[in-house]
Amino acid sequence: LQGKAFSSLLNRTMKKTALIVAGGSGTRMGNQLPKQFIEISGKPLLMHTLSLFHAYDPQTDIVLVLPAIHLDFWHHQCRKYRFTLPHLITEGGATRFHSVKNGLDLIQSGDIVFIHDGVRPLVSHDTLGRCLDTASQKGNAIPAIPVSESVRWSEGETNYPVDRTRLVLIQTPQTFLLRVIKNAYQQEYLPEFTDDASVLEKTGEPIHLVEGNRENIKITWPEDLEVARLFLR
Amino acid sequence: LQGKAFSSLLNRTMKKTALIVAGGSGTRMGNQLPKQFIEISGKPLLMHTLSLFHAYDPQTDIVLVLPAIHLDFWHHQCRKYRFTLPHLITEGGATRFHSVKNGLDLIQSGDIVFIHDGVRPLVSHDTLGRCLDTASQKGNAIPAIPVSESVRWSEGETNYPVDRTRLVLIQTPQTFLLRVIKNAYQQEYLPEFTDDASVLEKTGEPIHLVEGNRENIKITWPEDLEVARLFLR
Repeated sequence: LQGKAFSSLLNRTMKKTALIVAGGSGTRMGNQLPKQFIEISGKPLLMHTLSLFHAYDPQTDIVLVLPAIHLDFWHHQCRKYRFTLPHLITEGGATRFHSVKNGLDLIQSGDIVFIHDGVRPLVSHDTLGRCLDTASQKGNAIPAIPVSESVRWSEGETNYPVDRTRLVLIQTPQTFLLRVIKNAYQQEYLPEFTDDASVLEKTGEPIHLVEGNRENIKITWPEDLEVARLFLR
Repeated sequence: LQGKAFSSLLNRTMKKTALIVAGGSGTRMGNQLPKQFIEISGKPLLMHTLSLFHAYDPQTDIVLVLPAIHLDFWHHQCRKYRFTLPHLITEGGATRFHSVKNGLDLIQSGDIVFIHDGVRPLVSHDTLGRCLDTASQKGNAIPAIPVSESVRWSEGETNYPVDRTRLVLIQTPQTFLLRVIKNAYQQEYLPEFTDDASVLEKTGEPIHLVEGNRENIKITWPEDLEVARLFLR
C-alpha cells in the first residue's frame, strides 16, 4: 500500500466523532414541530443524519446536541422508532457556538471531529472521505459547492452583480483535528462566529475547502423536505 | 376595483410575450442530449417550460430561441409528442446576449416581455405575477431568492467569509417593458453581459428585485432533474 491508498487506510483507523447539532426552532418550516423531528421515509430526519455517520464507519462515536426542551421528546422518539444507535446527548446553548462548545466538552479523546447540522441527512460518503483526508493532513476541511445561479448584492434599494465564479456555498460536516477545534473553542464568543470555520479562522488558521455534494442540502424550507424524501429513497 | 386589484386586472390585459432561451449544450449533465430535451414527466423539459407561460395566460405569445443545430430535432420532437402550442422559433447566437437579441427582433409589438431560461420549468404563477406587476410599473423586475447557506469568497488558495444576508440568487423570468429591453439590446455586446439585468443596468436603469420561488431551479446537474421530476408531478 502506497500514497493515497495508504493514507485512506490510515484515515479509516483514526478515531472519529460526529458532533451533530440540532438546535433549530423550525419557524421557517411553517410547522410547530422543529424540522429535525419531522418524519421522513419512516423515521425522524435527525435519525437519518445520525445513521449516516454510523453507516460510513460503525466505529464513529456520535454526540448529539439538542435544545434542553427537546430532550424528553427525543428520548420518547427513540423508543417509539426503536432507534438503538448509541449516542451521547448534551444540551444546546444560547447560540450555535455555545451548543458546539458543549458538544466538544463531551469528547474526551480521538483524532477527528465532524461537526454536522442535524438537518443535513444527505451528505455522501465521498464528501465524508474528502473531509477526513484533508482534515487529517491540514487540520480542517470545509465542504463547499459552486453557485449555479447569478448572484447579486442587495442592500436596501440598491443592488449590483457579484462574480458568482468566486463564491462557494458552505456545507457541513465542517471537519477538524479534535485538538485544533477544541483549542479554537477556548476563545470568547463573538457574534461573527456563524460557523465552526469562522471560529477556527479567528485563531489565524487558514481554512481548507473540499468538494461537497449537491444533494447535501440543509432542510430549511418546506420544499426541501420533499427533495430530501426523494434522495433518501 | 381599486388599487392593487385594479392594477392586477390592468396587468392581465397587457400584451405579454415569453421569450424562452434554450441554448445549453448539456455538458454538465453527463448526457449527450442537451438538457432542455430530456424527457421528464411525459414530455421534454422545454415543453413544460413553454406550457407554463400558456397556463399562466393563454394570451401570452411565445418566442423560442434554439441553437441552429437543434431546430430539426425540435420540430421532430413537437410531432412526436403532439405538442401543438403555437410558438415562434428563431436561431440562437454566439452568446446568450446574441440569442436574446435575435428573439427580441421577432417581437413586433406588445407591452411586457418575460425572458426565461428554457431549463426552468418550475416558476410559479405568484412569481410571474410579481414580475408582471413590478415590470409594468418600474420597467423591469428580476426574481431573486435569499441564500440559505453560509457563503465564502474563494480565490486560489485563500478564502474568506461573505455576509450571505446581503446576497440573493437570481432567477428568471427577467421581466421588462418591451420598449425598455429592446432599447437596452441596441448596445454593443460586452462580456460582462451575463444576463438581461446586466444589459439593462449598463444603460443606467436601476434594477428592481422581486421575490422568486425556491422550486424555480435551473436544471443544471443530474440531481436537479430528479428534483424537477418531483415538483412537476
